[in-house]
Amino acid sequence: MAFQYSQELLNQVSLLIQQNDEQGVVDLLKDLHYADIAEILDELNTYEATYIFNSLDTEITSEILLEIDEDVREKILQSLSAKEIADELTELDSDDAADIIAELSEQRKQEVISELDDDEHAKDIVELLRYDEDSAGGLMAKELVKVNINWNVLTCVKEMRAQAEEVTRVHSIYVVDDNDKLKGRLSLKDLLTTSTKTPIKDVYIPKVDFVRVDDSAEEVARVMQKYDLEAIPVVDELDRLVGRITIDDIVDVIKEEAEKDYQLAAGLTEDVEADDTIFELTRARLPWLFLGLLGGVGTARIMGLFEGAIAEHAILFMFTPLIAAMAGNVGVQSSAIIVQGLANDNLKGSIGKRLMKEISLAMLNGLILAIILFSMTWFWQNDFTTAIAISTSLFFVIIMAGLIGTFVPLFLNKQGIDPAIATGPFITTCNDIFGILIYFWIAKLMLGF
Amino acid sequence: MAFQYSQELLNQVSLLIQQNDEQGVVDLLKDLHYADIAEILDELNTYEATYIFNSLDTEITSEILLEIDEDVREKILQSLSAKEIADELTELDSDDAADIIAELSEQRKQEVISELDDDEHAKDIVELLRYDEDSAGGLMAKELVKVNINWNVLTCVKEMRAQAEEVTRVHSIYVVDDNDKLKGRLSLKDLLTTSTKTPIKDVYIPKVDFVRVDDSAEEVARVMQKYDLEAIPVVDELDRLVGRITIDDIVDVIKEEAEKDYQLAAGLTEDVEADDTIFELTRARLPWLFLGLLGGVGTARIMGLFEGAIAEHAILFMFTPLIAAMAGNVGVQSSAIIVQGLANDNLKGSIGKRLMKEISLAMLNGLILAIILFSMTWFWQNDFTTAIAISTSLFFVIIMAGLIGTFVPLFLNKQGIDPAIATGPFITTCNDIFGILIYFWIAKLMLGF
Repeated sequence: MAFQYSQELLNQVSLLIQQNDEQGVVDLLKDLHYADIAEILDELNTYEATYIFNSLDTEITSEILLEIDEDVREKILQSLSAKEIADELTELDSDDAADIIAELSEQRKQEVISELDDDEHAKDIVELLRYDEDSAGGLMAKELVKVNINWNVLTCVKEMRAQAEEVTRVHSIYVVDDNDKLKGRLSLKDLLTTSTKTPIKDVYIPKVDFVRVDDSAEEVARVMQKYDLEAIPVVDELDRLVGRITIDDIVDVIKEEAEKDYQLAAGLTEDVEADDTIFELTRARLPWLFLGLLGGVGTARIMGLFEGAIAEHAILFMFTPLIAAMAGNVGVQSSAIIVQGLANDNLKGSIGKRLMKEISLAMLNGLILAIILFSMTWFWQNDFTTAIAISTSLFFVIIMAGLIGTFVPLFLNKQGIDPAIATGPFITTCNDIFGILIYFWIAKLMLGF
Repeated sequence: MAFQYSQELLNQVSLLIQQNDEQGVVDLLKDLHYADIAEILDELNTYEATYIFNSLDTEITSEILLEIDEDVREKILQSLSAKEIADELTELDSDDAADIIAELSEQRKQEVISELDDDEHAKDIVELLRYDEDSAGGLMAKELVKVNINWNVLTCVKEMRAQAEEVTRVHSIYVVDDNDKLKGRLSLKDLLTTSTKTPIKDVYIPKVDFVRVDDSAEEVARVMQKYDLEAIPVVDELDRLVGRITIDDIVDVIKEEAEKDYQLAAGLTEDVEADDTIFELTRARLPWLFLGLLGGVGTARIMGLFEGAIAEHAILFMFTPLIAAMAGNVGVQSSAIIVQGLANDNLKGSIGKRLMKEISLAMLNGLILAIILFSMTWFWQNDFTTAIAISTSLFFVIIMAGLIGTFVPLFLNKQGIDPAIATGPFITTCNDIFGILIYFWIAKLMLGF
């Protein structure tokens, strides 16, 4: 039931724009959701997108602005005057407005802010721009419904009506004292069933979850998910209520976090999409490939050390890609489980215990795989000693790979570095080198070359 | 500000249970959120967890039941009678109750359902059990607030009060006709500001987003995210309103989807966590490692075909792990971008265009890396021809790896198979084999052995 624009609709829109039929465009799009119009804009060229943008009401274009691709937005914003951008922002909640302003150049930022008619809104936006975008402050909106603990129910209902006008969705009513300190929350039900003269302090719920303005976005996501919250108040260093965060912003945080980890595991350094330019994609991919290249040259140098054995034990060299692949795979499996455990905050016990478990696991996997490899090699080469040497090496390589894959992300995490960088090419390159080294070293011991 | 239990608290709880001080346990835990108590239960042994469970009210234990680890839940449920489980379920929304019942054995299911006092609740749960857990039907709850289009505002407000009792959070009021067909929704604001005699059909909003009962969970997640919805109604084949899905369930779907893709990319077949048993972890890891082993043996066989060149061109064999690593890394990068594009539904254009773009990208990356490798090899070996042969091979291997990494997930997706399985060991193994083959073949052409 999700809307899908048809090529026909796109053609129709283009044609109407060519004919400069503004009313036709408006009529064609008027029943569509802004998120759907945004999808259509992403498909059109800048002239067409800007044309549509200028034809529609700011009430809907402001929402479209939030949904379109960043590069389309950049182009549309360039074609608008500071005053026009300010008009768009007036329609938006403070957090969304701040996100859009943050994408402008320093000079444009100033111009747009000075064009904002509503001083209160301008003040809110300026305040939000101060916070790190990955913190609770960067996620929160200033729009919320709050009442004073010293009021009675009647004053409260009156004030709320006025405030609720500005707030799109009322999730909770927050109770503050004269200094704006968060004291608790109010249930709408209680408010409606209590006599109008009752003081708020007799009916409010003093227990309320909150986050601090400098808590990280991940931390906010964790709290809201754990306690199944749809909105959470944000307080500053002095416990004053300064904003609230709603679950839809957290959905984005969760998705972005997951995508970042996934991309790091796949060897992509930046947040790229399939439709980015070749230059952007290269910049995201090349550093990891370069690392892999260095690792490969390292592996080749190590093999060079054992070149003397190549005449007599050529078969050993045939198995080096296998050893490298197994070391890489085991390393990625181990590190991915650790990274996910760290992200979900459900890793218990010490590093020592975790390494012990990984050793047992690697021994079990290693034993099974070594037996299979032994059978295959023996059958193929009919050389018992070599088959034993290769499979024994594999066994130890798997244990080493599991240990490195477990230890490195745990270590990085302790150092305050994102452990996700240890899942992809980093761990495979590392394990390739150590794997080949151990492999030849054990083979040398067993075959005596 | 997220709660973290201390070891001290755990010890205190254990001690109180040893002393059989039920009231002490209740007092110690009474101010904690159920999600926090669930975390504590996950840390205790089964006897202690069951003891706490039996000491607390069903109002809170039912919520704890939803939050604890699946294996702890299984053990606790085993220690409860069918009647006791039914009492827990009575406290829960139909969707949560159905999720828990679904984990029981067939016989136990029947026993528990027959013990449910509330016939309406039992009927709802039985209905929900029919749906696939990955569909809208499997996600939805039966609890919602609906009003008849033929009522007036007064009847409506009265009926709503009664219904709202059962619904934890009212997101929307849905309007249906006499046949229960979804007609639209009602804004609480309009309801409160309109005269009580106004018929509902004059004030309701006929435009409402909805999903069908057999839509996939991913589709529901996509719609709710796109349109920023906090709840969405679910209709059956006859357009009748049968349930609603809230955003907190969708947060779980998004997380699970992302984790599944991540695990597949890392070579883990099942949904495993770091704290699962060694047997479970082996079952998830071994199949992919076995695939890698087969690939490695295949690579060794291919290298065996070129064994004749080993005396004269030993250096070629030293670079096989490098070739395999680069082919694997490029393949994973390409496939990960495609898989993510497919998941986010933002891949545009044909397969042909996508492959063309990947070729350009791979040519650019390949050229840069080949030049670097050429310089390093030439410097190291001082053999121009070999250095050229190796770096030329690398160039073509990177292009091939990019093409396979792009084509395979697109192809799987067309066939209706989850493209995410093509990101991890599958693509690296595939690329190892083709990479080594191309590498030796080009080297053979250039060096003439």
